[in-house]
Amino acid sequence: MTVYDYIRDGDAIYRRSFAIIREEADLSRFSEAQADVAIRMIHACGQVEAAEHFVFSENFVEAARTALAGGAPIFCDAQMVAHGVTRARLPAGNEVVCTLRDPRTATIAAEIGNTRSAAAIRLWGERMAGSVVAIGNAPTALFYLLELLRDGAPKPAAILGMPVGFVGAAESKDALAENSYGVPFAIVRGRLGGSAMTAACLNALARAGL
Amino acid sequence: MTVYDYIRDGDAIYRRSFAIIREEADLSRFSEAQADVAIRMIHACGQVEAAEHFVFSENFVEAARTALAGGAPIFCDAQMVAHGVTRARLPAGNEVVCTLRDPRTATIAAEIGNTRSAAAIRLWGERMAGSVVAIGNAPTALFYLLELLRDGAPKPAAILGMPVGFVGAAESKDALAENSYGVPFAIVRGRLGGSAMTAACLNALARAGL
Repeated sequence: MTVYDYIRDGDAIYRRSFAIIREEADLSRFSEAQADVAIRMIHACGQVEAAEHFVFSENFVEAARTALAGGAPIFCDAQMVAHGVTRARLPAGNEVVCTLRDPRTATIAAEIGNTRSAAAIRLWGERMAGSVVAIGNAPTALFYLLELLRDGAPKPAAILGMPVGFVGAAESKDALAENSYGVPFAIVRGRLGGSAMTAACLNALARAGL
Repeated sequence: MTVYDYIRDGDAIYRRSFAIIREEADLSRFSEAQADVAIRMIHACGQVEAAEHFVFSENFVEAARTALAGGAPIFCDAQMVAHGVTRARLPAGNEVVCTLRDPRTATIAAEIGNTRSAAAIRLWGERMAGSVVAIGNAPTALFYLLELLRDGAPKPAAILGMPVGFVGAAESKDALAENSYGVPFAIVRGRLGGSAMTAACLNALARAGL
């Protein structure tokens, strides 16, 4: 009979995972608080090399934490991001919002000539002021967010710009880093990113420490 | 005023993404049907190199498609996997089930001395027979699934074994590939994997073609 030898204790698995990441990853570019966030993002993707592509604006971690502690809502571009947020870690029972499946989204998409992911952002409206925005899937959502900010939309407290993929992902994140309209941001440069890394970043921001 | 130059048409973005992946990825090891699945998995993670680590058992794609066409439920280890499944692509309105947050899970976890992710599998019970099982997060869930199959649990029609991470992920997937108890399977060897890749694999299986 095959006997499977593995760690069955969740906390022990987390501790061992974080220890391996600290051992293998180059976190020297990061502050202590940034490194904690980076470790959770690495944990979500299984690749220590991913850290090379992480960029945190200087005040990002503090700005996001302050906003979350003050009860800021979290706006996500994708259901997978929203469902990756660990509700028990949130400091103020923060609302986690994804408007992608709102029935109005398709109509707005047709009106603005963009994807449903971009259109969904329009429904965040005035509540975007002081919020934490997490784009973990669609480059078009991040580009459209930048267009709205350029045109004077209410500013979030922090932006996680982490769409994944082959068309527009790298470019949209470079554009955010180039000019975030004064909003603190984190990005994963290049094609990497995605809902798991974005949710891990949110979970790391929700509570200091690992 | 900054003008952002990007493709705003969702279908065009998909087509261009898949074309880039076909151009850059080495898909020569795969059958045509496997290649379509691989392309969607690459699309989800933004890395063509990931394909090196994909292993499909010979009859995996056909077995999973036949099961889904016949109305098989999809059992997922994580909410993010379940929420990544595009319901509109499913061929038979298949039920997508994740029991991780079931109130019984914590009690079972304590009883079996394992994680909640592992314990959640126990709630799939007899319905596991002929189902499609998707493990995209927790190595302990995949190890525990193998223990249940070893001990005579009902056999799924296909298993997606794609947990991500640093502790047990590689080992659990190697164990599945070593002995899947006769169940067709797909894995991503090593540390890579995760909910996005797993959901992408399910979405590719749900409908033939890209």
